[in-house]
Amino acid sequence: MKGKLYGVGVGPGDPELITLKAKRVLDGADYVAVPKTTRDKSSQALTIAKGIIKENKEIIELIFPMSFDERILDESWNKAVSEVVQKLDKGKDVAFITLGDPTIYSTYIYLHKAVKGMGYQTEIIPGVTSFCASAARAGVSLGENRETIAVVPSAYECVELDSILDNFDNIALMKISRNLGKLKQKLAEKGLLNNAVIVSKCGLEDERIYSDINAMEEEGLSYFSTMIIKKGGCI
Amino acid sequence: MKGKLYGVGVGPGDPELITLKAKRVLDGADYVAVPKTTRDKSSQALTIAKGIIKENKEIIELIFPMSFDERILDESWNKAVSEVVQKLDKGKDVAFITLGDPTIYSTYIYLHKAVKGMGYQTEIIPGVTSFCASAARAGVSLGENRETIAVVPSAYECVELDSILDNFDNIALMKISRNLGKLKQKLAEKGLLNNAVIVSKCGLEDERIYSDINAMEEEGLSYFSTMIIKKGGCI
Repeated sequence: MKGKLYGVGVGPGDPELITLKAKRVLDGADYVAVPKTTRDKSSQALTIAKGIIKENKEIIELIFPMSFDERILDESWNKAVSEVVQKLDKGKDVAFITLGDPTIYSTYIYLHKAVKGMGYQTEIIPGVTSFCASAARAGVSLGENRETIAVVPSAYECVELDSILDNFDNIALMKISRNLGKLKQKLAEKGLLNNAVIVSKCGLEDERIYSDINAMEEEGLSYFSTMIIKKGGCI
Repeated sequence: MKGKLYGVGVGPGDPELITLKAKRVLDGADYVAVPKTTRDKSSQALTIAKGIIKENKEIIELIFPMSFDERILDESWNKAVSEVVQKLDKGKDVAFITLGDPTIYSTYIYLHKAVKGMGYQTEIIPGVTSFCASAARAGVSLGENRETIAVVPSAYECVELDSILDNFDNIALMKISRNLGKLKQKLAEKGLLNNAVIVSKCGLEDERIYSDINAMEEEGLSYFSTMIIKKGGCI
């Protein structure tokens, strides 16, 4: 009997936002797989989950370097898949932990597709997303009644932000730190400077909530920052 | 000292998708407030959470009738707010439970705004959304890399579905049951019939996953059905 691969969302940062199911799956798995960008750096997902992972649990570190070089990326993916499959072949269950939810911009999904494609059993355990948690911390809704919601990743310089701002009622922009300057300008153009809020490091000890977007500086803003724009009302 | 109002997301259906924080808040609250459409009907949120709510916990039923009559709606809201505020004034904490996440199309947000506006302490405890859980059950991602995600409520006959289908990479359409016929036609027009999946009653015992959209009948499809459209690939 082969083992099973679980993709487990551990939520946006606050360890208490882990679900009962995620906890059970992590308790039951033979291995917990942890994504890292380099061997030395700590894993954000592991930092969140470490309080509920039993001390004697074996951790597999999978390295996914921040790179645009396809050769390097392919190599790291192949290595990760083969490490996981090796455990599954021995009948061991592997739980891969991932920030937020595994279906929302997670590296897990590539592993999932590869391993599922090879015929192994897989299961995704959903988690609380950073945009829901950010809205909660800011005390605003992401959608009411007939309103639409757009979720846009950090790479939104490539998408039609203008058309999204014009056509959607509420917009969640993830990982905005590198584009704050451009965003401020765009919000000013559209008269939306007072309709936005930024939640940075949501649920962590050094969480910050900024509602005066115009006064903000790009410098020092955390990578883990989400902007919520609500066209329907001031924030 | 006044009490505090909590809006607690209990997730999409599977009771195990409740977070550790939601459990702690429900354990600690003096009252659990439960939304119902009529006095006789059961509450979906309570059905999900009842296993973790202690037996001796006092439940407040708040009735929000399904109505478009503003007088009836206002009356039920005022009554709900006054029932909650009465407890808060006695220094009691009230936890209002809501399906999925409180910031995503939840009736909780109106109570939140009213009670917060009166100067009481409020806190939103985020939950797993039905669209994330549906994607997880279908084994697909909602967004990868630079892809955009649109979340559209049941009332999408009012919004520009054409433009959303043209401009977004992934679309989650919630509570689709009444519009399945129109949706099938629209997907056929756009050549997207093989790019969609429907998850009905996600995480419940009678959950169903439909990937042959063309063969589906509107009749009998649950109200709690989410369609995920992935333009990037067949499902």
